[in-house]
Amino acid sequence: MDPERVSRKFGMAPGSLVYIGDKSAAPVEIRVMDYTAEAFTETGVENLAACREYRDRDSVTWIDISGIHDPEMIAQLGRTFELHPLVLEDVLNTQTRPKLDDYEDYLFAVLKMIDYDADSRELDHEQVSLVIAPGLVISLQEKTGDVFDPVRLRIRNSKGRIRKSGADYLAYALIDMVVDHYFAILEQVGEQIETLQDAVIAEPDEQIVGDIHRCKHQIIFLRKSVWPVREIIAGLLRGESALISPDVRPYLRDVYDHTIQVVDTVETYRDILSGVLDIYLTNVSNRMNEVMKVLTVIATIFIPLTFLAGVYGMNFEYMPELSRPWAYPALWAIFLAIFVGLLAWFRRKKWL
Amino acid sequence: MDPERVSRKFGMAPGSLVYIGDKSAAPVEIRVMDYTAEAFTETGVENLAACREYRDRDSVTWIDISGIHDPEMIAQLGRTFELHPLVLEDVLNTQTRPKLDDYEDYLFAVLKMIDYDADSRELDHEQVSLVIAPGLVISLQEKTGDVFDPVRLRIRNSKGRIRKSGADYLAYALIDMVVDHYFAILEQVGEQIETLQDAVIAEPDEQIVGDIHRCKHQIIFLRKSVWPVREIIAGLLRGESALISPDVRPYLRDVYDHTIQVVDTVETYRDILSGVLDIYLTNVSNRMNEVMKVLTVIATIFIPLTFLAGVYGMNFEYMPELSRPWAYPALWAIFLAIFVGLLAWFRRKKWL
Amino acid sequence: MDPERVSRKFGMAPGSLVYIGDKSAAPVEIRVMDYTAEAFTETGVENLAACREYRDRDSVTWIDISGIHDPEMIAQLGRTFELHPLVLEDVLNTQTRPKLDDYEDYLFAVLKMIDYDADSRELDHEQVSLVIAPGLVISLQEKTGDVFDPVRLRIRNSKGRIRKSGADYLAYALIDMVVDHYFAILEQVGEQIETLQDAVIAEPDEQIVGDIHRCKHQIIFLRKSVWPVREIIAGLLRGESALISPDVRPYLRDVYDHTIQVVDTVETYRDILSGVLDIYLTNVSNRMNEVMKVLTVIATIFIPLTFLAGVYGMNFEYMPELSRPWAYPALWAIFLAIFVGLLAWFRRKKWL
Amino acid sequence: MDPERVSRKFGMAPGSLVYIGDKSAAPVEIRVMDYTAEAFTETGVENLAACREYRDRDSVTWIDISGIHDPEMIAQLGRTFELHPLVLEDVLNTQTRPKLDDYEDYLFAVLKMIDYDADSRELDHEQVSLVIAPGLVISLQEKTGDVFDPVRLRIRNSKGRIRKSGADYLAYALIDMVVDHYFAILEQVGEQIETLQDAVIAEPDEQIVGDIHRCKHQIIFLRKSVWPVREIIAGLLRGESALISPDVRPYLRDVYDHTIQVVDTVETYRDILSGVLDIYLTNVSNRMNEVMKVLTVIATIFIPLTFLAGVYGMNFEYMPELSRPWAYPALWAIFLAIFVGLLAWFRRKKWL
Amino acid sequence: MDPERVSRKFGMAPGSLVYIGDKSAAPVEIRVMDYTAEAFTETGVENLAACREYRDRDSVTWIDISGIHDPEMIAQLGRTFELHPLVLEDVLNTQTRPKLDDYEDYLFAVLKMIDYDADSRELDHEQVSLVIAPGLVISLQEKTGDVFDPVRLRIRNSKGRIRKSGADYLAYALIDMVVDHYFAILEQVGEQIETLQDAVIAEPDEQIVGDIHRCKHQIIFLRKSVWPVREIIAGLLRGESALISPDVRPYLRDVYDHTIQVVDTVETYRDILSGVLDIYLTNVSNRMNEVMKVLTVIATIFIPLTFLAGVYGMNFEYMPELSRPWAYPALWAIFLAIFVGLLAWFRRKKWL
Repeated sequence: MDPERVSRKFGMAPGSLVYIGDKSAAPVEIRVMDYTAEAFTETGVENLAACREYRDRDSVTWIDISGIHDPEMIAQLGRTFELHPLVLEDVLNTQTRPKLDDYEDYLFAVLKMIDYDADSRELDHEQVSLVIAPGLVISLQEKTGDVFDPVRLRIRNSKGRIRKSGADYLAYALIDMVVDHYFAILEQVGEQIETLQDAVIAEPDEQIVGDIHRCKHQIIFLRKSVWPVREIIAGLLRGESALISPDVRPYLRDVYDHTIQVVDTVETYRDILSGVLDIYLTNVSNRMNEVMKVLTVIATIFIPLTFLAGVYGMNFEYMPELSRPWAYPALWAIFLAIFVGLLAWFRRKKWL
Repeated sequence: MDPERVSRKFGMAPGSLVYIGDKSAAPVEIRVMDYTAEAFTETGVENLAACREYRDRDSVTWIDISGIHDPEMIAQLGRTFELHPLVLEDVLNTQTRPKLDDYEDYLFAVLKMIDYDADSRELDHEQVSLVIAPGLVISLQEKTGDVFDPVRLRIRNSKGRIRKSGADYLAYALIDMVVDHYFAILEQVGEQIETLQDAVIAEPDEQIVGDIHRCKHQIIFLRKSVWPVREIIAGLLRGESALISPDVRPYLRDVYDHTIQVVDTVETYRDILSGVLDIYLTNVSNRMNEVMKVLTVIATIFIPLTFLAGVYGMNFEYMPELSRPWAYPALWAIFLAIFVGLLAWFRRKKWL
Repeated sequence: MDPERVSRKFGMAPGSLVYIGDKSAAPVEIRVMDYTAEAFTETGVENLAACREYRDRDSVTWIDISGIHDPEMIAQLGRTFELHPLVLEDVLNTQTRPKLDDYEDYLFAVLKMIDYDADSRELDHEQVSLVIAPGLVISLQEKTGDVFDPVRLRIRNSKGRIRKSGADYLAYALIDMVVDHYFAILEQVGEQIETLQDAVIAEPDEQIVGDIHRCKHQIIFLRKSVWPVREIIAGLLRGESALISPDVRPYLRDVYDHTIQVVDTVETYRDILSGVLDIYLTNVSNRMNEVMKVLTVIATIFIPLTFLAGVYGMNFEYMPELSRPWAYPALWAIFLAIFVGLLAWFRRKKWL
Repeated sequence: MDPERVSRKFGMAPGSLVYIGDKSAAPVEIRVMDYTAEAFTETGVENLAACREYRDRDSVTWIDISGIHDPEMIAQLGRTFELHPLVLEDVLNTQTRPKLDDYEDYLFAVLKMIDYDADSRELDHEQVSLVIAPGLVISLQEKTGDVFDPVRLRIRNSKGRIRKSGADYLAYALIDMVVDHYFAILEQVGEQIETLQDAVIAEPDEQIVGDIHRCKHQIIFLRKSVWPVREIIAGLLRGESALISPDVRPYLRDVYDHTIQVVDTVETYRDILSGVLDIYLTNVSNRMNEVMKVLTVIATIFIPLTFLAGVYGMNFEYMPELSRPWAYPALWAIFLAIFVGLLAWFRRKKWL
Repeated sequence: MDPERVSRKFGMAPGSLVYIGDKSAAPVEIRVMDYTAEAFTETGVENLAACREYRDRDSVTWIDISGIHDPEMIAQLGRTFELHPLVLEDVLNTQTRPKLDDYEDYLFAVLKMIDYDADSRELDHEQVSLVIAPGLVISLQEKTGDVFDPVRLRIRNSKGRIRKSGADYLAYALIDMVVDHYFAILEQVGEQIETLQDAVIAEPDEQIVGDIHRCKHQIIFLRKSVWPVREIIAGLLRGESALISPDVRPYLRDVYDHTIQVVDTVETYRDILSGVLDIYLTNVSNRMNEVMKVLTVIATIFIPLTFLAGVYGMNFEYMPELSRPWAYPALWAIFLAIFVGLLAWFRRKKWL
């Protein structure tokens, strides 16, 4: 959540319609799909008031809205379908936490679609709001382009059981798409983690700590988006709403399992990442150790030798060794003995 | 909580009216707003006894008290509206934990408004007590100046549904203001964390650990203030009290979602902060490593060279090299070879 | 808990009366307060058998026993008031965990009073056992001197509602005193933590780690004593016992809130303490860093200089520089250049 | 879970039959065991349609399928036994989380068999799906070769009570085999941990951190596979399905206890592993300490000596000591005194 | 748990009687105590079939079996008292997790007695199985020698209420002994922790990390043994079994409190131990710091001095200082000034 955006709304009356997402110049796109097992129509709509006719039909209607930056349009949506002002406020508040509200005549769900931007290696989310009423699903999202195309195709081609089922199955199909897309995001994050794992062993540099933490942020972000979805589906499964027919429940149970799997994987990634950080820190320690050993070996060997050389560089008049012809070679022998002896000692200590 | 203040009350009979907040010289301000959908009056009141008349009216009355450092006034409030002695004690005890008590005839809620002091970069809280009775809301706060002005405006201008609703909606509107203000505080804390994140990468100094921990304290403080608010609203939502009408429940659910969002964000901030500390500590380790490397490179190169120079500074009579004319340039060649060789070795080890 | 003391009782039949606390030479003090709203008597009692008469009176009786090191007296207490043998065993076992047992005719509660010894800066606990029967409260504690004096005063002076209420209110008043005293202890611990926080920044020495851990032990100790008290009061609040009248419930709810506040504060202290340890450890790292930098700066500057000096101390016959008159001052210029150059380099690296 | 494999299925209609495991060239093996207490037949089957006859018999039938890479065969299985499309999808989706779904007419369970590859020291899992219907158990697994041979033997030899019991007992026996096999895996992991514990004390090298983390991954993997099995059996035990007879419940309780034991042991291993990492890191610190001590001892002793030697190598004309005959031996005495004195000081500091 | 032992049983039919504990050469000892309030007989029994007569008596019978390494004897026990095969299997499987199973006619409980081996400072456990039927308790343990002697004495001497109570009280008494013995173990572990706490401050050596972790293993071991006992007693307390009379419930509540106390203490020990490790690691850091300081102080003082001495050891022909008679003493003065100045600087930095 971005508290800055939310706090822009401070002091407004509840139900005030303020869009706090990024302003978009693109026009709002409204598409209506109306279908039964036999019939199917797809129309682009300019004015939501024209959608009122779909309210009492027997067919299933999907009103598919891309672009919510026009509060007036949202207000009209509320008037047309008699939605609670808080529903409209939540649709516009793109920082709403994923949730399911039961307004008896209809259910209102808020979900997050997640996108992975390959360039910046950042995750981004887009809010999807769903109004689920008898024979009607309204979906609202911030931008054109989404993960719902496979559902649109299945409706058009009458593939699977979607055309034979009701609005509850359509709602399920949309939620399923959102959740299934999380696996693609997990795949991206998983690849990043693998890259990090390899990098931390091959050639760890200081940047890797930043990368690990960026990856950790993504995992926290994912968890926060997915976890409440589990509660949403659990709420639908608990079957207190008459809007969800028993036939759809095995399917909901299936999405429920998927959300749990996503959360499980997210937890595993978290554990692995903290392991990667541990390996990095241990490597830093070990490298420091190695540096210290090199210093110690060199210094320990040459400091005593230098001392000896210094001794025979002294200018005392009475230094009997200085005049012996064998003294100089003898000293070299001593130098060599100390050198070899210390090397052997270091080798025994496993420092070399 | 500040145990020192609480322990001042030790040994007093329960229901003793002792104000433990900061003494204030400012006079107590009592404002009464009385409204129905059509009518509206706003009066300043000197004596709470005069408020008794509002008790049995059909209109909604908001008795809005700023300044609670006068125990006598609180005692009179208790007598006028027949409040339980423990309610009065909790109003005065500014260290009360946020809570909701159901006294059947009325509900009593304690909340914390949080303020961010931009100068000292400290959070501060101010206690808000609410008594919610049929057609009556009494709000009490420590100081003048609060987050309720938008509600006052909405009542005066009859904006939104507030004038058409009962005391329960008014209570909701006040709680909503308190919770919404948390987002502004979160924004401030979030900005601090971002500053810390940038600082820890750009130019980490020792002070940053203190800053991280001050920020962590603020997050703990926020969490402790917000978490019980969630329970308060959950208590109201559970709908056991007849004072809360079903119409207000979607609104309460909305504030409930907001508190969860605040707590979620607080948790995320905590995770991010601990990541910032990790990055700092890794930087400390890495800088130490760099220091050690410089020392090791310099020492490892020059210690053997100094030894060699020391050898040819010795005063042995029989040192044949000394009298060879090519010996001195040859030694310089050896010096250079050692120097270049070690540099190459260090570069291969990636220490340079 | 001190397992050593508990294990002294190993193998004894349940209900065996063995005192495992510190033997005290002080005589057992038994005081009986018997009161109604109008009447009040206070008597010292030598023999518990004399207390039997209070059992069936309409007045409220508080039998207040200081000193439990006389198993025979406890046995007599059991006979006089028909208490379960396990109650008597728990009274004597000063290592009993705080708890509430419902024996239908009476309730039995064990609490811990906590004392802070300012000299040794250690926390100590003293067990308080309460038997709550209709019209009768028996309190037992290890030593004379307690936190109940304010209650005694209120009874004597008929202050507050204590004289107008039953034995359940008296029991509440005693529990309230015990819990309220925890705030005083928290204050002491809080002051210690503040001292530690200041010390860790001002002049951290090695002793501070020990101090932090002693403080942490105290917090663990407090938590262990307070946490079960919460369960005790929750048990009383659940209202399954007919011994607790509904009038007393708001008061119990109040103590309940206090215990939660104590536990909350204890948790906060824990978080702060672990922050203090983090700051200390970071300081240790930073100081090490500083030490290393000083060494590195000095060594890196002088080692090459010393090498150069060594070179011109060599005794080669053919060293043309040695006979040039400008050579010595030139070398000093080189020394100075190296010195200044390295200093500048270190300053750019921000090591100075 | 491997999100990459799961995301291959993105956008497909629920119930789409896609096998995402490793393609295998081995043919699918279908074996049917049909038995009562008296009779027993075992046949290999080519075409699942032939199995339809077993559906309504009184005997217990186990259809044992190895190899699920042929979606057409799975589709036929669904048609023959009227299974829900989601069941078939989950059978093929080898990344399904272990779970139990109750489809009223039959139960569907997914489990994971775990294999330990001794060469690569990696764990691998293979999915086992069970359909439990009255008088019928269908088991599906990815590859030939499994842990069910003891059950097959017991059926053939009519050992134990399996031939006298129903399909629920057979299902129990299969689940029991899967869970019992986890103990063998635990044994392998336990041995690895012991090896690590020994290695970390005997001769810790840098590789060990990687080994510890590989081991930790295995433990996380195990936990993720076993934990949901506990829920599966708890679901069976809750006894809501008429397919599980009361006679089988003690047996299910037994497997339940085993899963808890596995999870307990996994938790213990986790604790022990993090202890091993702690020991390793402490060893690294201690070795660094030792290296530093050697350097410090040598440098601290010889640096002052070298300075003294340097002093008497100076070429001042007026250095009276140089001409004294006792000066040179005296200096050696001073050298020795400093050497011995510093050694003694280090010994007293326990650095040697 | 030791997975190796459990996995020996892989593939066996449930109910297979295999003893997986250590084989013992000692003969199985069977002792029968049969008592009412008035009468008491104690007999050694060779053949369990002889015990059948005790089944339907009115007296309470305790069949006390030491040594379970004879599967045939266990099978006979099952036949004599009509026990479920899984009960017999669990009796022999000495790695069974502590648990309580309700077989309606009887209860079956598995507990762990814990022993502290003072020599190896290791904890060891021995499994105790209890079958609790009306008027009958069968206890089975692996070896002779246990913690039940006090119960035997109380029965023989008719001490306490044991002879006046039923089989449920006897079962309670046995469980109570097992739990009470945990306090003795806690005492041993507590002493070890105190020794470690002292050692870590007085003279920390490298071995201490191993000791801390061995102690931590013991605590994990204890926790794993005690925690499920809590569930066992909670199961008995929930009072669903008619075998437990209401009179025994206060006693069970008492043991329940004891197990919670044991677990509480174990948690506290864990916290203290991790504190001990923290202190140790801080000490390691501080000692490293001290080593570094010594090195830095010595090197920083003498390296510049050595440089100066080297300068005046150079052989330039034109070095005017060399021929000045005051130069040598002046240089010594400079040496001394540098020495004292640096010492003072280090003292101001608090490095000395």
